[in-house]
Amino acid sequence: MARIVQKYGGTSVGDVERIKNVAARIKAMRDEGNELVVVVSARAGVTNELIARAKAVCALPSEREMDQLLAIGEQETIALTAMALHGIGVDAVSYTGAQAGIFTDKVHTKAKIKTINARPLEKDLEAGRVIIVAGFQGIDDDGQITTLGRGGSDLTAIALAAAIKADKCEIYTDVDGVYTADPRVVKEAKKLSEISYDEMLELASLGSKVMQSRSVEFAAKYGVVFEVRSSFNHNPGTIVKQEVAYMEKIVVRGVAVDKDQAKVVVSNIVDKPGSAAKVFRALADAHINVDMIVQNVGRQGVATLTFTVPQTETAKARRTLEPVLKDIGGEVAVDEDIAKLSVVGVGMKTHSGVAATLFQSLADAGINLELISTSEIKISVVIEKKRADEGARVAHAAFKLEKLG
Amino acid sequence: MARIVQKYGGTSVGDVERIKNVAARIKAMRDEGNELVVVVSARAGVTNELIARAKAVCALPSEREMDQLLAIGEQETIALTAMALHGIGVDAVSYTGAQAGIFTDKVHTKAKIKTINARPLEKDLEAGRVIIVAGFQGIDDDGQITTLGRGGSDLTAIALAAAIKADKCEIYTDVDGVYTADPRVVKEAKKLSEISYDEMLELASLGSKVMQSRSVEFAAKYGVVFEVRSSFNHNPGTIVKQEVAYMEKIVVRGVAVDKDQAKVVVSNIVDKPGSAAKVFRALADAHINVDMIVQNVGRQGVATLTFTVPQTETAKARRTLEPVLKDIGGEVAVDEDIAKLSVVGVGMKTHSGVAATLFQSLADAGINLELISTSEIKISVVIEKKRADEGARVAHAAFKLEKLG
Repeated sequence: MARIVQKYGGTSVGDVERIKNVAARIKAMRDEGNELVVVVSARAGVTNELIARAKAVCALPSEREMDQLLAIGEQETIALTAMALHGIGVDAVSYTGAQAGIFTDKVHTKAKIKTINARPLEKDLEAGRVIIVAGFQGIDDDGQITTLGRGGSDLTAIALAAAIKADKCEIYTDVDGVYTADPRVVKEAKKLSEISYDEMLELASLGSKVMQSRSVEFAAKYGVVFEVRSSFNHNPGTIVKQEVAYMEKIVVRGVAVDKDQAKVVVSNIVDKPGSAAKVFRALADAHINVDMIVQNVGRQGVATLTFTVPQTETAKARRTLEPVLKDIGGEVAVDEDIAKLSVVGVGMKTHSGVAATLFQSLADAGINLELISTSEIKISVVIEKKRADEGARVAHAAFKLEKLG
Repeated sequence: MARIVQKYGGTSVGDVERIKNVAARIKAMRDEGNELVVVVSARAGVTNELIARAKAVCALPSEREMDQLLAIGEQETIALTAMALHGIGVDAVSYTGAQAGIFTDKVHTKAKIKTINARPLEKDLEAGRVIIVAGFQGIDDDGQITTLGRGGSDLTAIALAAAIKADKCEIYTDVDGVYTADPRVVKEAKKLSEISYDEMLELASLGSKVMQSRSVEFAAKYGVVFEVRSSFNHNPGTIVKQEVAYMEKIVVRGVAVDKDQAKVVVSNIVDKPGSAAKVFRALADAHINVDMIVQNVGRQGVATLTFTVPQTETAKARRTLEPVLKDIGGEVAVDEDIAKLSVVGVGMKTHSGVAATLFQSLADAGINLELISTSEIKISVVIEKKRADEGARVAHAAFKLEKLG
């Protein structure tokens, strides 16, 4: 008997038939004698429908009301999943985020989990019930409903796995696991049987779209080993865990492309100490995630700051920077026609020449590099968006990733 | 400046355009300097969609999960209504039943309001905010979501009006007010400018469909004067209040027809003391509302019990009675092909001959009476369902109700 946390994403519970399919999978696990806590997302499409309705009544809906609204997507799924389990004779009970004791800070639409009071949940587990928890949502100390932002349901699952000391955490999604590259783009891409938190983090934050980085960070912090796998078949997925020594033999484990970033160039800033700090403080206060920062100081003490932000945040970034630029001078230009291509692998720590191989392969294909940034285990470059898929194929071949898996 | 509670039903907030219309009405009231607490229902159709989805995953969904599910309908509307108000520059904040401190007992799908902790709400009122509260829902002492059953949003509005000592309570719906009969059936029907709680109660419980009786009872108990009016025009509606002397001059104020009842006949019961009590105790324990009870004792000490229940409860009533009949004998027959026709008026208390006029008018039209029951202010008869509309027209004419209004 094991204590297992499972998470099913929006496509896995997309309609009543799929919810019944998920219920059947849960019953099979339950019948093997396991204790189960199951986190579900909103049905695929529901969140977008709700956002469309919100925008139809108000151009810029308040984030507090957005959370009140969006939380209902998951609340629908938990009730339907519990009912589907009852329908096949499994004792189950649904929990909203608030009922599951998931306490967050007060940052609406992007809340962070502070603590989980798992006592009520433990009680139902002891009584032999399967527990269905609404992903993506929590409650603050004042009883306000909060949501955790994109990928929040994964975070709910991993945080619950830590809180109830689960033996296993399974993230069910519509893909089979983590691949060396997006199989729709690179047909030679291979599924990895395991991957380290650090590699997964880089892949997640770089747009492999399997999981959001904050969930992986949370798992790494609390040592939650989890498996990413498909709810539509029974294939083994990819296990994500602390890196182990033999993993380092493989230099590059994956190529990721992120087309959802935009490049922001703030030029003609008077280069005084503190100018860059003012820019990034303002962006941080507005909760805009900034990535790949480069600064050049040009002629006559005039500087240019270049960085990337999510495309969804460009309007907000412009608004946020306006008052700052009145102070420090300069002007903003946004280029959404870019993509970030990255190669990732813990083996880079002990191998040299990775950057050279990557740059050479892209140069051979005639692809220009607009920005470069590196970490211990990844190298990222910003290139023209329309060359991104080609770039991924070229890099995948250069590192012979078709031989992994 | 007045403190006003308004309630908008499902058709009034049926889509984003109607929600914007409601927001504009609220803004107009707010601009006159009033304090506003607004209760909204789920968008028309949403609750039925959710019920259909529930039945698609489980033949007999648990009532606890049903409440988790149904509560999202109103939670959607409160968020959208608050956003629509923000969109036109009105400071507003949405409250779920739980956030509004609406505490109920633990009877899922039919909970009763126990107390309202209006403190957080008072605070937002003082801050000048319009407050949008989810109708139909509450929370029990264990944090479980409950719903109040049919017409629950009206109850929420009236209970809140009592809790915050509102000066006015306005129930907006898709009808102009309370009529002497259903205008779709009796074209001479007139809108009443006012009506007593008792009359409204009889009309509500008898199927005039404007409001559920429990809301009227609650209003009568706490002396909440309310007005029933349309959200689609600005016509004055019907004011419902404690009866006043001049009201008694009018003998009959309305004719109501209820086609949603079924007649249950339990025949061949061994007539022992306590048999009827056992039947009605079992039905009460199953929370089935029983109306119009008649008992006949026939030959050889064998009794027949006849009563009406809502048609939606007939299957449950049969199931509930099975074990009882094993004990006391007898068999059950259900007739759904009936309607209840009633005439209502506080004036009946001091006038005689009302029953005779009603029975004569129906007899003249050749309509048979299957059951009769009377109270101080109403007379009800069960007749064949297909003759019900004709019966209403005949009775309306017999009491000259076309001259009221």
